[in-house]
Amino acid sequence: MTTSDTRLKDAVRRYLETVNSNVPEAMVQLYRSDARVEDPVGSGKLLVGHEDIRAFYENAFAVPLTVQLETEPRGSFGDAAAYAFRVTRGTTTLKVIGVLTFDEQGLITTMRAFYGPSDITTA
Amino acid sequence: MTTSDTRLKDAVRRYLETVNSNVPEAMVQLYRSDARVEDPVGSGKLLVGHEDIRAFYENAFAVPLTVQLETEPRGSFGDAAAYAFRVTRGTTTLKVIGVLTFDEQGLITTMRAFYGPSDITTA
Repeated sequence: MTTSDTRLKDAVRRYLETVNSNVPEAMVQLYRSDARVEDPVGSGKLLVGHEDIRAFYENAFAVPLTVQLETEPRGSFGDAAAYAFRVTRGTTTLKVIGVLTFDEQGLITTMRAFYGPSDITTA
Repeated sequence: MTTSDTRLKDAVRRYLETVNSNVPEAMVQLYRSDARVEDPVGSGKLLVGHEDIRAFYENAFAVPLTVQLETEPRGSFGDAAAYAFRVTRGTTTLKVIGVLTFDEQGLITTMRAFYGPSDITTA
């Protein structure tokens, strides 16, 4: 993996901007064809590949949502980046930490979203 | 894994308080005997077991350090929790996201620290 630390963080920001577009197909294009998604972590549901990922975002964007970073993203000495953010979707707020890994072309190979029941609040 | 979401976050806070004690043996006792540590992620160095972990913290605490949360920790629907924090060690600051997993007794089974070169600043 040759992507530098700063490029990893740029990729996180691009990812979150794309989430804010609420366009499922734009999300799918960020992922490698064999990418794996675990959202939320511990749910026991592992998504694999573009078809699963498209269905996931179609469902997620059925109600418009926005995401916003809470802190600067963190890089790594490898292919991973991590970032604390909030999701606002209707009257619901999620506090999440995401971890993305990327291939050498900058495509996402894995996405994991850490949040639990106590990170979900509804106004 | 029966540990609830809130218990996971409490365990993160206890872990960070123990880091602030700067006592290597106190850290070792938080980990299961076969625990794995990757700090930083992508370094290619995977620590396994109490002996590796003790040596890691003895080295880390050779210069006193303090840690402080940047955001509320995140739980999960499984055995994992994630948290954004800062490490201050002498004139150096690290911005890190940590991910811990726990066994049913509350012992740490894995610790991963996400930070890269651009997350390290020296005054």
